[in-house]
Amino acid sequence: MAGKWVRMVTAQTPTNIAVIKYWGKRDETLILPVNDSISVTLDPAHLCTTTTVAVSPSFDQDRMWLNGKEISLAGGRFQSCLKEIRSRACDVEDEEKGIKIAKKDWENLHLHIASYNNFPTAAGLASSAAGFACLVFALAKLMNAKEDQSQLSAIARQGSGSACRSLYGGFVKWIMGKDEDGRDSLAVQLADEKHWDDLVIIIAVVSSRQKETSSTSGMRETVETSLLLKHRAKEVVPKRIVQMEEAIKNRDFASFAQLTCSDSNQFHAVCLDTSPPIFYMNDTSHRIISAVEKWNRSEGVPQVAYTFDAGPNAVMIARDRKAASLLLRRLLFHFPPNADTDLNSYIIGDKSILQDAGIQGKEDVDALPPPSEIKDNIPSHKFRGDVSYFICTRPGRGPVLLSDKSQALLNPETGLPK
Amino acid sequence: MAGKWVRMVTAQTPTNIAVIKYWGKRDETLILPVNDSISVTLDPAHLCTTTTVAVSPSFDQDRMWLNGKEISLAGGRFQSCLKEIRSRACDVEDEEKGIKIAKKDWENLHLHIASYNNFPTAAGLASSAAGFACLVFALAKLMNAKEDQSQLSAIARQGSGSACRSLYGGFVKWIMGKDEDGRDSLAVQLADEKHWDDLVIIIAVVSSRQKETSSTSGMRETVETSLLLKHRAKEVVPKRIVQMEEAIKNRDFASFAQLTCSDSNQFHAVCLDTSPPIFYMNDTSHRIISAVEKWNRSEGVPQVAYTFDAGPNAVMIARDRKAASLLLRRLLFHFPPNADTDLNSYIIGDKSILQDAGIQGKEDVDALPPPSEIKDNIPSHKFRGDVSYFICTRPGRGPVLLSDKSQALLNPETGLPK
Repeated sequence: MAGKWVRMVTAQTPTNIAVIKYWGKRDETLILPVNDSISVTLDPAHLCTTTTVAVSPSFDQDRMWLNGKEISLAGGRFQSCLKEIRSRACDVEDEEKGIKIAKKDWENLHLHIASYNNFPTAAGLASSAAGFACLVFALAKLMNAKEDQSQLSAIARQGSGSACRSLYGGFVKWIMGKDEDGRDSLAVQLADEKHWDDLVIIIAVVSSRQKETSSTSGMRETVETSLLLKHRAKEVVPKRIVQMEEAIKNRDFASFAQLTCSDSNQFHAVCLDTSPPIFYMNDTSHRIISAVEKWNRSEGVPQVAYTFDAGPNAVMIARDRKAASLLLRRLLFHFPPNADTDLNSYIIGDKSILQDAGIQGKEDVDALPPPSEIKDNIPSHKFRGDVSYFICTRPGRGPVLLSDKSQALLNPETGLPK
Repeated sequence: MAGKWVRMVTAQTPTNIAVIKYWGKRDETLILPVNDSISVTLDPAHLCTTTTVAVSPSFDQDRMWLNGKEISLAGGRFQSCLKEIRSRACDVEDEEKGIKIAKKDWENLHLHIASYNNFPTAAGLASSAAGFACLVFALAKLMNAKEDQSQLSAIARQGSGSACRSLYGGFVKWIMGKDEDGRDSLAVQLADEKHWDDLVIIIAVVSSRQKETSSTSGMRETVETSLLLKHRAKEVVPKRIVQMEEAIKNRDFASFAQLTCSDSNQFHAVCLDTSPPIFYMNDTSHRIISAVEKWNRSEGVPQVAYTFDAGPNAVMIARDRKAASLLLRRLLFHFPPNADTDLNSYIIGDKSILQDAGIQGKEDVDALPPPSEIKDNIPSHKFRGDVSYFICTRPGRGPVLLSDKSQALLNPETGLPK
């Protein structure tokens, strides 16, 4: 293992959105939850983390860069993941480069890690889920660890709970587990992303002036003070998990939507039942819910499910492309872009939904008629500027290795960010 | 009972604010709740209903005027109250006027009713509670019914559930009862208004563009769809009722505030757990809660409790006048009046709190420094215009008869509104 070589691996990992929510830990250090959860993996084409991990005998310490800026690896969560994955490292042999790393060498070798999100880190879009999943997945490949995705998910979980669900594409269940050491608290895939490929996802990134409670401290306070959380975790969620698995298996959108919306609302209810109360949704979030609920009721069968994580952003899952384009028309009617915002940066991701919606430019947005379900009512308000932008996407695949070396984030000679 | 006489009675009844909330009926017609509740009666000097009821052989039908406008008495709730109270009517003899009404005559006599709120009816300030309590109380006096206040409360309950708690001053418990016919679902006084006369109440009437779900349909939907409500009603509220009675008995403000805030938040949590979800609080409500919570924490012991009914208005209960004046300074700092609003109409009710707060005019509002608990933070936003006005009041007395005939709302000759 002598010499000046740098060995590196680059991986890409998706983010995910829970449809049955994780809220509350029974073990803070190991990150063991109080209930199972289920998520949909989002297409990494629109939301993902790319991470390059490198090892070299010339590195004198572990270092990490996030979106180009060096960050500390001193936190307990990084250290847990690094320690767990190092203990699973195996012999590596790269004949082409003439590199040989023995299993026992790994504990003396240092790592460089560079990670990049293709979406704003602070927008409340589960960047830590994709980030820790990508870190663990990439390190496992670099170190030739033999663990399968489920076993890796139990390591990623120790970085950020929801990260374990980003080890798979499609529909994923995080089984809470029973063991005290957390070895059975891991993710399994319920169905891959091709199983239900009608679904279209639109995310409203909602402008917010409020500083939000972090999910770590928020869920700790809920566990300590909410008198409703235990009932939710023990009595409500287990039944919903069974029903949600069935809905996904049968592609039963009506059940899927009803469960998704109810569970999002119940998660925010237990936040409100916390002392002091936690508010993640704001008036804009409420208006989006009201618009979706009104439309769903007017159609008789649900067209769209909504779910909100620890912030005001709405994630809407439409039953198909047709529903998604009708949803987008409604969203743009209520939340048109500011005068200085160009439509091309207001709707990002899969822009073909915008074409389906018959919208070419901002004049088409201004010309949108009120949705039929609100026509009879009092003149409807417009909330211009209350949404920062929309992301159109869909369910997507799990982690992949990027073999194209040009996509690496570290210089192959120096092991430093490009 | 012949002749052209009009006999009338005028009464004044307070409104009340629940500190342990009523939400959910087990019987929609009789208005029987799923849990006990506890309220504070508000001083009728600032918030009350005045009702004049009149009987005359010359009236050919029951009629009612609310705030000067005739309204229908056809609704089931009015009819229930009228029927119940008529069945309890007794002989009446007015020697001075030479009127004699025998018990059996009442079923053939018609009534005129005029009612007036000294506060905006639509502002979400429990006008129906004060209104039905006043109607029943005044009719009982007119008809010489022998029932005590508790028995009258069980009649008022059939008009509007929370009305039963307006039959007493001070601190009142509505016992849910067990009987199917509802006879034991009634209010009792826990302590009168002199028991804890340090308390000062400030109500923020919050501007809202949203049409709110009525509490009648809201609680029906919660009973039908929330998976958390039953747990709240059966497991949480009974313990809180015991604790709240104890806190009131001992004038233990710390416990009183903790229970009041937690129970308000839990009521809004079960609203959010309803399908479709019900939002009564808006961003302004959330900001008021955050400001109060932050101040309470910085003081170490609670200075103010907050509670919200089925709307965005905040009812804040301060431990004493000192705390109330400090609260008012904080509220005016965050929510200054609009440029075109005069301070005298922005702070109504007991304006002496404004003097205690050292505020003479709008220039004093503009000069308010940020509260010490937020000084270190990022420059704090001002939310000018987000509160319509504030009402300063206190716990108050129960219903009274107004013997001054000039206060009657009906003409003593014609029985029609003055």
